[in-house]
Amino acid sequence: MPHIDLPTDAPGIGGLFHYRPQTALPMAQLAEVLLCGEHSLSRGERELIATYVSSLNDCGFCTRSHAAFAAAQLPGGMDLVRQVTDDPDGAPVTEKMKTLLDIAGAVQRGGLEVTPDHITAARKAGATDVEIHDTVLIAAAFCMFNRYVDGLAALTPEDPAVYESIAERMVIGGYLPAAAAPGG
Amino acid sequence: MPHIDLPTDAPGIGGLFHYRPQTALPMAQLAEVLLCGEHSLSRGERELIATYVSSLNDCGFCTRSHAAFAAAQLPGGMDLVRQVTDDPDGAPVTEKMKTLLDIAGAVQRGGLEVTPDHITAARKAGATDVEIHDTVLIAAAFCMFNRYVDGLAALTPEDPAVYESIAERMVIGGYLPAAAAPGG
Repeated sequence: MPHIDLPTDAPGIGGLFHYRPQTALPMAQLAEVLLCGEHSLSRGERELIATYVSSLNDCGFCTRSHAAFAAAQLPGGMDLVRQVTDDPDGAPVTEKMKTLLDIAGAVQRGGLEVTPDHITAARKAGATDVEIHDTVLIAAAFCMFNRYVDGLAALTPEDPAVYESIAERMVIGGYLPAAAAPGG
Repeated sequence: MPHIDLPTDAPGIGGLFHYRPQTALPMAQLAEVLLCGEHSLSRGERELIATYVSSLNDCGFCTRSHAAFAAAQLPGGMDLVRQVTDDPDGAPVTEKMKTLLDIAGAVQRGGLEVTPDHITAARKAGATDVEIHDTVLIAAAFCMFNRYVDGLAALTPEDPAVYESIAERMVIGGYLPAAAAPGG
């Protein structure tokens, strides 16, 4: 049960967005730019970073949502997503993705955990400055989203169909409708 | 030295905002709503929560900036800010603020650390649902801002005058100019 009275039973961050649309809008806009905007990393790859950080933060709702978003947009599907959250170093992703996941894991522990060695390894594997910047910011942003969802005990449905249905809408419409049409 | 090449020597998050204006805008808008918008908590009280979380995250730039913003807007000034970061339970703030700082500290450790007891204590001390919601989100947002600043090793000036000057502008103009006028 959520810690505060929400006006809807929309799951996860959807219920919180409905409660406080003034903060929902910039949060959805940030997710839209980071995860859906034009980018040299695919949408699936960026969702993989979001899923990995959410799983490190033990956030059930965000892990399951973004795992579904990543799986829907990556050829490897949910098997690949599970390999990445279980063992990113051993997962069948590019060397560049491994170095970026390593940076994301450091950010999850704390900003000061990111060292020049992390950056050198990512650059060596071909990562650009924008890719490094956005990996740090995606990881940092999910340290916010995860804490927002669990810090208010937002509803976390058990039924996998809920996450597949959210994923279908998100892949087509992106993140803005979640803030613009509360309860959606 | 920042981990990526920034187009400016603007300190802290200002340099990062200049580098990536597309993500700067929603981040500044979120800070503006949470810290400067109409509210039953004063701007100084909300800056105190931001400062406390930044200090728990060991983020030098954010701690010093928001401490200056809080000090400029609270009758107790920098002495009060220091008492809160050193020992929130013993600091001369209201019982309600103590329970909110306690929630913010739990969020900093992780979203699942916030318990029904935290919420009951805050309600008993007179906190509203919006105050609880915004405390959780301010704390969560600073877990993002802090990681963003330190994860990219943004410039952190030593000179206290830098923070006083940023504070003067922020108290008058709020957070939006930082994203709208890069380098400012």
